[in-house]
Amino acid sequence: MARLLDAIDGPGDLKKLDAKELQQLAQEIRQELISTVTISGGHLASNLGVVELTIALHRVFDSPRDKLVWDVGHQSYVHKLLTGRRDRFGTLRQLNGLSGFTDRSESPHDPFGSGHASTSVSAALGIATARDLKGEEFSVVAVIGDGALTGGMAFEALNHAGHMRTNFIVILNDNQMSISPTVGAITGILNRLWLDERLEKAESRAERILSGSVIGRRVLQLGREMKRGFKSLTLPPAKIWEELGFTYMGPFDGHDIPKLEASLVQARIHQRDKPIFFHVITTKGKGYPPAEADAVRYHGVANNMCTQLMAPTFSEIFADTLHQIMADDPRVVVITAAMAEGNCLGTIARDFPNRFFDVGICEEHATTFAAGLATQGVRPVIAIYSTFMQRAIDQLIHDVCLQDLPVVFAMDRAGIVGDDGKTHQGLFDLSYLTMVPNLIVSAPKDGNELRQLLYTAIRADHPMAVRYPRTQTAISCPRGTLEELPIGRGEILRDGKDITILTVGPMALPALDAARALSELGIEAAVVNARYIKPLDSELILGLCRASGRVVTVEENVLAGGFGSAVIQLLHSAGLDNTRARCIGITDQYVEHGPQHILRSKFGLDAPGIVRTVIDNFPELRSSVGERPSAAVS
Amino acid sequence: MARLLDAIDGPGDLKKLDAKELQQLAQEIRQELISTVTISGGHLASNLGVVELTIALHRVFDSPRDKLVWDVGHQSYVHKLLTGRRDRFGTLRQLNGLSGFTDRSESPHDPFGSGHASTSVSAALGIATARDLKGEEFSVVAVIGDGALTGGMAFEALNHAGHMRTNFIVILNDNQMSISPTVGAITGILNRLWLDERLEKAESRAERILSGSVIGRRVLQLGREMKRGFKSLTLPPAKIWEELGFTYMGPFDGHDIPKLEASLVQARIHQRDKPIFFHVITTKGKGYPPAEADAVRYHGVANNMCTQLMAPTFSEIFADTLHQIMADDPRVVVITAAMAEGNCLGTIARDFPNRFFDVGICEEHATTFAAGLATQGVRPVIAIYSTFMQRAIDQLIHDVCLQDLPVVFAMDRAGIVGDDGKTHQGLFDLSYLTMVPNLIVSAPKDGNELRQLLYTAIRADHPMAVRYPRTQTAISCPRGTLEELPIGRGEILRDGKDITILTVGPMALPALDAARALSELGIEAAVVNARYIKPLDSELILGLCRASGRVVTVEENVLAGGFGSAVIQLLHSAGLDNTRARCIGITDQYVEHGPQHILRSKFGLDAPGIVRTVIDNFPELRSSVGERPSAAVS
Repeated sequence: MARLLDAIDGPGDLKKLDAKELQQLAQEIRQELISTVTISGGHLASNLGVVELTIALHRVFDSPRDKLVWDVGHQSYVHKLLTGRRDRFGTLRQLNGLSGFTDRSESPHDPFGSGHASTSVSAALGIATARDLKGEEFSVVAVIGDGALTGGMAFEALNHAGHMRTNFIVILNDNQMSISPTVGAITGILNRLWLDERLEKAESRAERILSGSVIGRRVLQLGREMKRGFKSLTLPPAKIWEELGFTYMGPFDGHDIPKLEASLVQARIHQRDKPIFFHVITTKGKGYPPAEADAVRYHGVANNMCTQLMAPTFSEIFADTLHQIMADDPRVVVITAAMAEGNCLGTIARDFPNRFFDVGICEEHATTFAAGLATQGVRPVIAIYSTFMQRAIDQLIHDVCLQDLPVVFAMDRAGIVGDDGKTHQGLFDLSYLTMVPNLIVSAPKDGNELRQLLYTAIRADHPMAVRYPRTQTAISCPRGTLEELPIGRGEILRDGKDITILTVGPMALPALDAARALSELGIEAAVVNARYIKPLDSELILGLCRASGRVVTVEENVLAGGFGSAVIQLLHSAGLDNTRARCIGITDQYVEHGPQHILRSKFGLDAPGIVRTVIDNFPELRSSVGERPSAAVS
Repeated sequence: MARLLDAIDGPGDLKKLDAKELQQLAQEIRQELISTVTISGGHLASNLGVVELTIALHRVFDSPRDKLVWDVGHQSYVHKLLTGRRDRFGTLRQLNGLSGFTDRSESPHDPFGSGHASTSVSAALGIATARDLKGEEFSVVAVIGDGALTGGMAFEALNHAGHMRTNFIVILNDNQMSISPTVGAITGILNRLWLDERLEKAESRAERILSGSVIGRRVLQLGREMKRGFKSLTLPPAKIWEELGFTYMGPFDGHDIPKLEASLVQARIHQRDKPIFFHVITTKGKGYPPAEADAVRYHGVANNMCTQLMAPTFSEIFADTLHQIMADDPRVVVITAAMAEGNCLGTIARDFPNRFFDVGICEEHATTFAAGLATQGVRPVIAIYSTFMQRAIDQLIHDVCLQDLPVVFAMDRAGIVGDDGKTHQGLFDLSYLTMVPNLIVSAPKDGNELRQLLYTAIRADHPMAVRYPRTQTAISCPRGTLEELPIGRGEILRDGKDITILTVGPMALPALDAARALSELGIEAAVVNARYIKPLDSELILGLCRASGRVVTVEENVLAGGFGSAVIQLLHSAGLDNTRARCIGITDQYVEHGPQHILRSKFGLDAPGIVRTVIDNFPELRSSVGERPSAAVS
């Protein structure tokens, strides 16, 4: 039987379907999501939750003329299926395939790109404001989850929108469960919303009683007076949104297409002098029992699941080591910004509930909260993804490092992250970390070193970052005695008189492979694991560079302001001007999604790339060699 | 007559005074503030507004055992006067003198440093959480203004605090006027609070009426039922804070010491399972008629006041040029994050009210709002201080530059800012801007060039930053024809065969002075105004460096990841390894407050410093010179 979905080439085709066909379409979309995402990886539960909402949106609004802005964008798969990207859906998150988020370069139906949380209200308000300035007419809709709503910038935008009285719609997709079960009082408010219906009934009962007597009528009149001053006094949780300047509509069942459509039409044609807050209740994982039952687990399928099945990931080693340290040292607490799962903190949350803080999607608060803790002798560890730390650079500069407070930044997903792509790459951290005074910046080459660096960081009396990648470690890393690694001291992994290869983190491994390959070509390369990017081991680096006069740096970070940049600055400030230095890293561009090893290879961040850099830039070293060098390692 | 203030060596001395003496003390403090701040510069109106609140706080709480955390900290002068810093108060904001903000290194009475807005609730929550973890007993109080409350991270912290139910006090210092008249719906809520008293009266009237009849009593009972579900239903604005998990107290008159004290005691001894939101209404500028009448103007005395009395400041040239451009180009709009005064945007706000957006202290929202506008063909200019742009680096990376949207960042107060000190220096921007792909980064050497670069930025089809300092321009810069300055092209200001001095922004001027002084010593230095820090003018730079083999870079930015770092990276990647390069800039440290010229001199960022760097690092150039070189310019 032909699928209805196969005839949907754009939102217009949706409008031809009747209620029963829409039901069937929803079913087909769920099937498509499950079969594709369980193979390709990606976000399943959140997309299963918005099937009906997305259908209703595309029937009521006229995309791309009307603008739909999806917050975070991991729930935009249904939207992609319905807006002409069905044929490419199997390429989701694959190299050169569809992005796992909305992307302006992918479709005119994506008016704003996404990835990080809490941006949609700001972006939609900007789009709607531009429309009004230009005297154009179209609808603007932001769809934001209850998790993203805890982010401060969403509040900033709601506050500004309420003040501006701009005509647009904010849809709260309330699944009462963000990536982590959502934290915060705002969720408490939402959860209590259902009580309102009871209240409304109580109120109309009161009206009926009162209107029957003179005194009652006087009270009613008084009540109406109050209402003029305090509109919707009787619907308190909605009232919060009303107070913020929005017209509140809802809550609606997010899986009832006809009702959603009718309500969205109302919202669309609503009075034009106010934004609308449209509250929808959805079930994450809807229609796929395993995902409904464990939406956290199925949030990101094939994401780092903290499994013990294969070699451990850096994230797992981090969590295991932190657990070991917390058992010994009562000063240590851990803070996550709604990433407890990704950071593998489940066991810690269970075993140290009072020393585990999930602050919601609030990196700024997380950082200054940690600074406050640190002033009192507590040792906070912020477990955070490199890309999300970008949200709290000012707090790092202004609250933690300026006061030289001992906060540990355990920065996961540093370097190339793979499938999540452009918005999520951890490729800026070495630059924005090393510019900050007082901060110690380190990177382990493997899981064992991660254990020691984390231990060192917690015992350091200064702020310290430990950045590690989203990968498995190359070796098994059982628990053992923890010891501090001297701050600012690197490690020579291999001697070599001709050239020095200086590496950051796990880049030490391909560098060793490269050195072996170069050796076969008669070139002897020293390999150094920098271990500390700041402070650099100047003595070690200058000594080696003075000896050979040649150096190559290797890092998974943008070249501007990164490790290589710091090394050559060191060389010049020490007067070693004549050292020939080349830097391997990410050139000035955003890096797409795709398998990590392919993307690394593209930037020369693997053994063949390192060999090629050495041979091409130091041709005198291979004067005696005739064969093609890269063949030796590729 | 001896002043009472002269006998206050610490908070303990306050407790000896009676009500009348406290009145007199408040008077004396006001006198001290006015006489000191009108001479030394600093924040006057905000401090005049918290005289009584500060006295009451120090009488009720026991600092430093109890922790008082001042948000922003510019209103902490009274606190400083009362906590043993009276004798040094005349050194406020002077070199080696008291900081204009709270500072942990200055006094045990400053448990957390401040400067940027909206951090206090996070910090106080951290301190209170640490206290509870350690089983200690003391009070923690955050004092935050209504302006800082619009910042998203304050909301993140309130949300988390409500969830945690931690025992601490957030005092809202509501002067209904932050630096700019506050924007946003939250202010609307606060302003309506006064209506509550009317409502409360209406309610008790209703109770009286209702209790007189059977039917009325039934209604009353119904009302009580509702109340059980929705506590404080009858006080809606307070209810917002209750919903967020706080106990709301207030509003209180912030100038009535006895009442404030009594209420603060209540708050201190209040039930211990919930944070308290304590609402105080104050009058900014209280007791000093000129400051009361124009609190915006007196917010920062001797701050850049956009005066036309002396040579124009860069800020003024920016605003004047933007006005000129907006008059011609209807696409252009301007966004400020509560800094309309500092950015001299008054005239623009008046003449283009629909194209001027003050979003409150919300740099994150400002940036993504601009990105949304830019998707629709609008050309937003974000007028922002360099130090505050640190708040929105992720939005810059993720929303603006990833999508290559033409947003202009007019970054004022770049470089050393002077009196505001450590927290406000604009010394990181070249590092965090140049790491971002697609972003064009520029700096004008003077006001005329600022005009052209701003014009260029608005016509560029990419995001572009123009960074300029907090100073007057050296020359008069009348309006004239605007023309684009080719992107990525620098400017040779002086030829010279021996060495090249590459400069950023107004550093071109001391570099020219240095070149003249060097010339007298027989050393011919070329001077280049880089104009663009990204993309660099590689052709120009490489050509000059190839010719002389010597280069010195000069920038008001940290050295890590800054302009010099980019230049030497360019040299190596182009194979000019043997160029001898030295970088002048800010070494790895936070820079204190003090006069700009003294601080610049400390880092060699003036003509004598540049001469010294050349002579010391390139001794061969002066082989024929005997005299002391620095004498020639100092």
